[in-house]
Amino acid sequence: MPDGLGAPLPAPLFQRLAIIGLGLIGSSIARVARRKNLAGRIVVADRSEDVRRRAVKLGLADTVETSAASAVEDADLVILCVPVGAMGGVAEEIGPHLKSGAILSDAGSVKGAVITAISKRVPASVYFVPAHPVAGTEESGPDAGFATLFRNRWCILTPPEGTDQKAVARLAEFWTAAGANVEIMNPAHHDLVLAITSHVPHLIAYNIVGTAADLETVTQSEVIKFSAGGFRDFTRIAASDPTMWRDVFLNNREAVLEMLGRFTEDLTALQRMIRNGDGKGLFDLFTRTRAIRRGIIAEGQETAAPDFGRRTGEENGS
Amino acid sequence: MPDGLGAPLPAPLFQRLAIIGLGLIGSSIARVARRKNLAGRIVVADRSEDVRRRAVKLGLADTVETSAASAVEDADLVILCVPVGAMGGVAEEIGPHLKSGAILSDAGSVKGAVITAISKRVPASVYFVPAHPVAGTEESGPDAGFATLFRNRWCILTPPEGTDQKAVARLAEFWTAAGANVEIMNPAHHDLVLAITSHVPHLIAYNIVGTAADLETVTQSEVIKFSAGGFRDFTRIAASDPTMWRDVFLNNREAVLEMLGRFTEDLTALQRMIRNGDGKGLFDLFTRTRAIRRGIIAEGQETAAPDFGRRTGEENGS
Repeated sequence: MPDGLGAPLPAPLFQRLAIIGLGLIGSSIARVARRKNLAGRIVVADRSEDVRRRAVKLGLADTVETSAASAVEDADLVILCVPVGAMGGVAEEIGPHLKSGAILSDAGSVKGAVITAISKRVPASVYFVPAHPVAGTEESGPDAGFATLFRNRWCILTPPEGTDQKAVARLAEFWTAAGANVEIMNPAHHDLVLAITSHVPHLIAYNIVGTAADLETVTQSEVIKFSAGGFRDFTRIAASDPTMWRDVFLNNREAVLEMLGRFTEDLTALQRMIRNGDGKGLFDLFTRTRAIRRGIIAEGQETAAPDFGRRTGEENGS
Repeated sequence: MPDGLGAPLPAPLFQRLAIIGLGLIGSSIARVARRKNLAGRIVVADRSEDVRRRAVKLGLADTVETSAASAVEDADLVILCVPVGAMGGVAEEIGPHLKSGAILSDAGSVKGAVITAISKRVPASVYFVPAHPVAGTEESGPDAGFATLFRNRWCILTPPEGTDQKAVARLAEFWTAAGANVEIMNPAHHDLVLAITSHVPHLIAYNIVGTAADLETVTQSEVIKFSAGGFRDFTRIAASDPTMWRDVFLNNREAVLEMLGRFTEDLTALQRMIRNGDGKGLFDLFTRTRAIRRGIIAEGQETAAPDFGRRTGEENGS
């Protein structure tokens, strides 16, 4: 197939899939589940009326519910796709309505805090398998999702010790069929890895965009005009969903502060090199950093096209 | 025309264009000058034998010279496209060979230090008009250039006080015909603006890639695998030419340290918000930063396509 997702499955993996929260991630799961026949029925719930209306309009599900508790009734796979800080509340709401033997999972970018928030609300008869698909764009909402979002991306499962291995295998099968590569990881290690590969990058992107906006010596209009010098790259991830990212930082505090400490320490050393005119030190660092990008491209996690292959300025003609 | 550069000029703007240094920028100027008929003859020089061989092979110029001094003989426009730290040496070498009435320009990313290095080596009969085309990719060398690199990008001219206005206008005409928008700016202000829109962004990108490479708790292979969470964006500009960027930091030290100071101050405040669990402060910053990207897209300096419109993972099939 031209979308690289392969043919739909001959029989659905789950009878009834419930997705709670229909943002970029939730709506992408709904789309790929539909396209690849991953579930017999797809039921979604979102607390926002606007989102529910879009979900109906876009035909994202068989049923669109107002109540998360109703949506999970009888579902054999439930995936929570709400901001990390809202996971505990949703778990509390749906806990009593989960079917015995169902798998409960999530798509949160933080695992330690989410496991703490959810675990205590899950009945013993339900298999809780936390997950994090490492994929996204800077857009949000049900219209932003697409079926190929997870293709060739990694989905990290972080089952706490003692989790039923069959449930883990079934969820892994779901994500593999959605196009992702599956990795199993310890929750604490996940939070450390993502702090450096995702959370701190977002933090410093938000930060430099904020710094640039607040300068008195350089106008905002100048920042915008001359952003092609490098700055514009940072504005992409600094345009990500504010609620989602606020919750990430509040819930992965320790790992983020640790990695941020390392970043700042290194930046101070780099600042000293500039102050001291240490050309060799600068050159050595700037040479070393090229190798990592080559690795990322070789692993299929990045395009090899220069400038991300982007085409700019064409929107305005001329 | 499909390349958005418009038709070639009916008559060349300059009789003889000399380009010293055939990297991404120099070779792109050669290409657009050829395609748009900006010069009657194009002469290039590069001190690297490999680069000269590629220049001949790619047909980038009418004449490929080993010596910069020979290349500028009789040229009515000379553009220096060497790293900022090499500008003074090249100016010294070519100074005595420049034609009376010629325009000498450059493409350096720093203007104050370059003006100091070049000015004193320019004969009084030559018009020196410093310039900086704010365009590029993470690639380097003569093969990386392309004729549309400057289309819809800004080229900043920073003529020191007393510069001949006709010379400024002729150079502006050249860059406009090459597809760029021209802005005139004071050199010191240029260096401040570029410090925040280009130099500090490169510095923190190099820095976080270095930090990630040096961690003991997270492996390099994990950084590569899970880089789609945001980190990979930074690796693009951290793959830029090490010599060029070493020279930028050594030659725009004051402005870079000033902007870096602001960045660090803001980052410390952000760090404190995380430590104190200040969700409102985080949310407010994350909301504010979205507007700047919208401005950049509206000004045609960035693509509106999500994720830069990049297509990843397709190289590896499936």
